Amino acid sequence: MEEIVNFKSTLLRCINCGHTTGLLEERTFACPVCGGLYDVEHNHVMQPFNVMTKKFDWRMSQTGDSPVIKSGVWRFLEWVMPEMYQDQIVSLSEGNVPIVRAGRHLSDWVGPVDLHLILEGMTPTGSFKDFGGTVMMSVAKAAGVKAIGCASTGDTSAMAAAYATAAGIDCAVILPEGKVTPAQLAQPLVHGAKVITLPGTFDDCMRVVKELVNAGKLFPANSLNPTRIEGHQATVFLLAQYFGWNLPDWISLPVGNGSNCSSVGKAMRLMTQLGFNKPTSHILGSQSEAACPLSKSWSRAWEKYGATLAGWKTLYEPMEVGETNATAARIGNPVSYQKVMREITMSNGCMNTVSEKLLNEAVAICGKDGYFVCPQTGTALAGVKMAVEAGWIKKDASVAVVSTANGLKFTESAAGNLMKEIIPAKNCQTETVAKILNL
Amino acid sequence: MEEIVNFKSTLLRCINCGHTTGLLEERTFACPVCGGLYDVEHNHVMQPFNVMTKKFDWRMSQTGDSPVIKSGVWRFLEWVMPEMYQDQIVSLSEGNVPIVRAGRHLSDWVGPVDLHLILEGMTPTGSFKDFGGTVMMSVAKAAGVKAIGCASTGDTSAMAAAYATAAGIDCAVILPEGKVTPAQLAQPLVHGAKVITLPGTFDDCMRVVKELVNAGKLFPANSLNPTRIEGHQATVFLLAQYFGWNLPDWISLPVGNGSNCSSVGKAMRLMTQLGFNKPTSHILGSQSEAACPLSKSWSRAWEKYGATLAGWKTLYEPMEVGETNATAARIGNPVSYQKVMREITMSNGCMNTVSEKLLNEAVAICGKDGYFVCPQTGTALAGVKMAVEAGWIKKDASVAVVSTANGLKFTESAAGNLMKEIIPAKNCQTETVAKILNL
Repeated sequence: MEEIVNFKSTLLRCINCGHTTGLLEERTFACPVCGGLYDVEHNHVMQPFNVMTKKFDWRMSQTGDSPVIKSGVWRFLEWVMPEMYQDQIVSLSEGNVPIVRAGRHLSDWVGPVDLHLILEGMTPTGSFKDFGGTVMMSVAKAAGVKAIGCASTGDTSAMAAAYATAAGIDCAVILPEGKVTPAQLAQPLVHGAKVITLPGTFDDCMRVVKELVNAGKLFPANSLNPTRIEGHQATVFLLAQYFGWNLPDWISLPVGNGSNCSSVGKAMRLMTQLGFNKPTSHILGSQSEAACPLSKSWSRAWEKYGATLAGWKTLYEPMEVGETNATAARIGNPVSYQKVMREITMSNGCMNTVSEKLLNEAVAICGKDGYFVCPQTGTALAGVKMAVEAGWIKKDASVAVVSTANGLKFTESAAGNLMKEIIPAKNCQTETVAKILNL
Repeated sequence: MEEIVNFKSTLLRCINCGHTTGLLEERTFACPVCGGLYDVEHNHVMQPFNVMTKKFDWRMSQTGDSPVIKSGVWRFLEWVMPEMYQDQIVSLSEGNVPIVRAGRHLSDWVGPVDLHLILEGMTPTGSFKDFGGTVMMSVAKAAGVKAIGCASTGDTSAMAAAYATAAGIDCAVILPEGKVTPAQLAQPLVHGAKVITLPGTFDDCMRVVKELVNAGKLFPANSLNPTRIEGHQATVFLLAQYFGWNLPDWISLPVGNGSNCSSVGKAMRLMTQLGFNKPTSHILGSQSEAACPLSKSWSRAWEKYGATLAGWKTLYEPMEVGETNATAARIGNPVSYQKVMREITMSNGCMNTVSEKLLNEAVAICGKDGYFVCPQTGTALAGVKMAVEAGWIKKDASVAVVSTANGLKFTESAAGNLMKEIIPAKNCQTETVAKILNL
């Protein structure tokens, strides 16, 4: 019989009270002592930074079927989930995403910094969630999980459904009847998830998922699950490798539930621990006006207390969300808010609250360089522009923006903003069209 | 002043009558003598196969800003467009796409072959057109083109708009008023194309584009332009590199206008010329029942004359197209039909006509392995299944299927086929849902 990975040196530790539990035993991902969030903790002996980076460079130069060769997440196996066995990885060849320098439209718009984008929408399910999904599902499979589930119409359900079917695990997506469009259901359905509709509200769906999770019957695919964070760390490792094992001055992210922010901080700490001795990045987290519980409290705390974590914590509160095109980050009570606060503060970073107008403008400007990004990426880009104007980000600083999802997931909102640009010709004469085009 | 590439050893040659013209002078891409299609011909001295593959392997191992490093098309610059200057390339970092082995659902469905997919939907605009687009637009820029255009709502307009704006060239997309959905317009609009609507039919739009092209005012972005074919060759080079500089026994493609089929044949001829001495691939081209002018005539020719090009040519005729989910290949009179016939025959390949049921089934099966592919990819996958069953493709043969576009461009049709799978729960009780899920 095949040997199963046992993760004997990998723990879950509550970030509030320090309670620990085994990675393969946990099913609910809430500390039974205080209800706090877990971090994954690796007590595995790791090789020095410079030894590992040579290995990672070698893997990047190879082709072939092994997940450490073909996945841009598992290339960094020893940093992501060091005890994982290669033959038990559930991978869809995620993570080999382009890192591109901003074109002239975006550069002019943002201001005088050296701007790059890491295009995490170019993944199997079209969002950055795949970085975490491949790790979450590999661990779930090792833990003998039979069914996972969520109450999402967005990137999480798409990711959960795709990786679950690849793992041979059942996936349930529970949604309110009649409230969801066919386009939103396409990914879960194509990936064979059991889509169940309830004659109720979204809250009913959430409650049912939660009760099934708490009863140990359904494994949660949502942000509570800290194994996802481990995979998201690859963003930092990919950027470091791209920049010749240096980090950019700033990493800019949109913040929803905050799992990507958490992972950037965790990844940089790991690199430093292992012997990376160059400067790490400041984290810039941005939120839209409609859903800005973290950025709003950060700004108020900054004015009142300066950059203290304690000051920020006293001012933080969840909020009722409004309407925004950045629907994937439309979260008033972020699961990982404590981790976000920790990482922004520890990195000496900052947060920005971005207007709807500015985030839509960012998407349009990015489109003029040839890249179709999601509204959440627009938030992160607008945040950079504001931080440059405010002097937070200095002239000529290197900045990497995490583009979290493919614009193809947001065709309706993108087109909606731009339909007024269409030029109706008065007639079907070639002359008429030539005149419109100045030909 | 910057030196401009002059392509002095690169010609366009009519595939019908042999008439030649300079690459930078051509604006209409139809032979003035006989109306035939052009091939790009490189009379540049090229280094031997084994020298170049080492160079390509080295480039793959690097990171950085140069297009030969970051683009999976321009990695093969010397084979794609050998006279191009690196600093004049218009690239969006296209072409570093995953090549993956089929999962267990697809493998079981297709039959006993070693099946791989090259996922060309994971490109900047979400389709394989970017492979050709980067080359077309780089040449157009070198030729001093000011405006390009097309009458398309699909992958071509998305590609043309994205690469044109990156190149600083105007792009016109001309469409009938009121016949196109916002989602179809999202990509051209986001990429800043001038979208003009005419109070007429699609034929009116085509006529206007054609007249502007023939007047030398608008550069055509469509399949007539053979510089696109040069970029599509990278599919073959990427596959060869992935397989350790070997080619799979078969390459399977969906056939619409036929530019990808043309390029596969051309790429293999080039490799052989330069000293590749292993077997080349047979090409399997598949079309849907609704739009099968090439595959239908191939089958009839096969029965009547065997595998002769002359026999096939006598039986070929354009057709009226029907309805199909494979809308991107819904073409009754393919531009490159002569090239398709040449390449299928020369590669000792074959064609299959695929039912709508089978191509939709292929998309669904592929989804169960975690990959969301377009209906055209479904056509190519179904074609492999049929060829395995018919004994054309032998047991254990290696087969690479070109997945031409991202499933996210086809959410409506994918979901439409699967809405019946949704399970409505009778009430909002957790028990009820647990029972449905067998938990």
